[in-house]
Amino acid sequence: MKGFRSPRIVAADTGGALLDEDYQPLGLIATAAVLVERPYLTATACEVRYQKPEGYDMSGRKAIVEEIKLAAELARKFRPDAVHIDSTIGGIEIRKLDEPTIDALRISDRGKEVLKDVSDEVRRVALRLWEDTGIDMIATGKPSVPVRIAEICSGVYTVIWALREASSRGYVRVGLPKFMKVEIGENSIVGRSIDTREGGLYGEIGFEGVPENVRWELYPNPTLKGFMVFEAWTGE
Amino acid sequence: MKGFRSPRIVAADTGGALLDEDYQPLGLIATAAVLVERPYLTATACEVRYQKPEGYDMSGRKAIVEEIKLAAELARKFRPDAVHIDSTIGGIEIRKLDEPTIDALRISDRGKEVLKDVSDEVRRVALRLWEDTGIDMIATGKPSVPVRIAEICSGVYTVIWALREASSRGYVRVGLPKFMKVEIGENSIVGRSIDTREGGLYGEIGFEGVPENVRWELYPNPTLKGFMVFEAWTGE
Amino acid sequence: MKGFRSPRIVAADTGGALLDEDYQPLGLIATAAVLVERPYLTATACEVRYQKPEGYDMSGRKAIVEEIKLAAELARKFRPDAVHIDSTIGGIEIRKLDEPTIDALRISDRGKEVLKDVSDEVRRVALRLWEDTGIDMIATGKPSVPVRIAEICSGVYTVIWALREASSRGYVRVGLPKFMKVEIGENSIVGRSIDTREGGLYGEIGFEGVPENVRWELYPNPTLKGFMVFEAWTGE
Repeated sequence: MKGFRSPRIVAADTGGALLDEDYQPLGLIATAAVLVERPYLTATACEVRYQKPEGYDMSGRKAIVEEIKLAAELARKFRPDAVHIDSTIGGIEIRKLDEPTIDALRISDRGKEVLKDVSDEVRRVALRLWEDTGIDMIATGKPSVPVRIAEICSGVYTVIWALREASSRGYVRVGLPKFMKVEIGENSIVGRSIDTREGGLYGEIGFEGVPENVRWELYPNPTLKGFMVFEAWTGE
Repeated sequence: MKGFRSPRIVAADTGGALLDEDYQPLGLIATAAVLVERPYLTATACEVRYQKPEGYDMSGRKAIVEEIKLAAELARKFRPDAVHIDSTIGGIEIRKLDEPTIDALRISDRGKEVLKDVSDEVRRVALRLWEDTGIDMIATGKPSVPVRIAEICSGVYTVIWALREASSRGYVRVGLPKFMKVEIGENSIVGRSIDTREGGLYGEIGFEGVPENVRWELYPNPTLKGFMVFEAWTGE
Repeated sequence: MKGFRSPRIVAADTGGALLDEDYQPLGLIATAAVLVERPYLTATACEVRYQKPEGYDMSGRKAIVEEIKLAAELARKFRPDAVHIDSTIGGIEIRKLDEPTIDALRISDRGKEVLKDVSDEVRRVALRLWEDTGIDMIATGKPSVPVRIAEICSGVYTVIWALREASSRGYVRVGLPKFMKVEIGENSIVGRSIDTREGGLYGEIGFEGVPENVRWELYPNPTLKGFMVFEAWTGE
């Protein structure tokens, strides 16, 4: 085929939350990194790092560090054209994220504080990736389709986590990332965007099947429109 | 089933507007209160108070008072875990809505004025409900799924109202709440969210059927994208 | 049928962009004007003025002038009740768009500068239309359904342009307006809103068919969620 190249992109995002009985998040569950290639509808490859939701640092410090580390790992393996990180700081190369750059961002003071606390660590990871491979990590945020696919995959991993936890805990309630549902098959779980404006983005992750004694239900979070709740439990 | 309880929630909202020939709203038509239970997709029970759209107070004063009264009625009947009221004031218990609390809200001065005018009345209703039953009324606003289901039901009641009014007036044009359509069956009308991101919310209300000589049409409001117009008339 | 009249509306919008290899817009492609009548789902008539995307003035100056001229042409032909122009200046009659009015608008200083540069020309076109026909041009912007249908049609014309250009250039990549897809038939191309909240808006334009040696693909813009990319090329 003639024409421009279509970039291969690695992206990462953290999503899925353990919920309490009032549907409030206790902590995040899954950091997912994905390789996304044209036609940019789903992931060609995925990796997950499960988090410990109890006692999870909800400030965002932990999430961004985990995302950048996992994305760098996947980038070394698949050598994409770019790496997209979910962040609201808008199009900046992570390897350039020093204090003056952070101060100049149009984000909240609290956001700047969080970034400064992690900037040494994330800058080092991004710089090393760039020096070794020439691949840049960019803080693209919401407009990035690969970041959204990573978010959807983090939701699928969250459901896999919940189905397993149900066996040991007896019961678990988790919240999925916004505007997505899951379809549980025999050998895989598909997460699908329910925001039609995104043009059909999805993620599919293989898994071992629902344990025989586990039941589950998917339904809208009554306190947070646009977000689905997934519950799994053993027995009836 | 093991696990957390899933709250039963009563919610209320006012919607549907009588429109003039320029598609401008003349007044609101239906206050709906609903009982919503897991899986939070539709209402288990509904009540309506029809408003007189001609000369309707569009400031919001009348709507919030009617919503709180009707929701309190339904709450006394069904004893839910909480009552959600559509309001942008964000998560506050209505029984605590006094002047200092209103002054501290981050809303417009005009909004504060409206709230102060009605605060005595709505606080009294909420306080009495709380003292009698222990049930709290919370101003949750847009994130509440039950409030959205109440909004959809107010749209269905608006269509029922329009079909009846068409018989007496000969012609009527109304506007539905945002992002919803209606399907008119033999014995009921179903209102469905057309915002797929909401995960399939709907409301169904029984009714006596379309009068034999009444015709109707549903189409997008050309001046307000996302809102549907319903027209009904007698004859051809 | 009894009841209010339903206005016939002419609207215009410019959309579709030639993209570079980084999916960045080089210039706009198609100004479309449409006649929209009840039930306001599609266009009854369409016209296009193709732009030269290379070296295109991306400030918005050229787009608004072209839209107003083409809309005025269509309005003289079809005598609608009103003309809607896509602009964020909100409900103002174009024929009244003088400097004091522009200064009073709540838009950016850069936006005011752009408007002042073109105000003489667009005011003259709108005033002449109004004097000759009594039809007003209104800057309605996003809430207008006819403007959205014009935007969708500009996307369809962009695809027709791309299929032709592919034959001469060998390869072309364009970006469609937000939240729409295209379905390419034998004798026409249909553009459909993929934002379900809009209630099913679409536009259909006749065309001569895909040239025999041209291939094409439609896929999400990886760098701009909600926007689709259309590529066409000759050969395999």
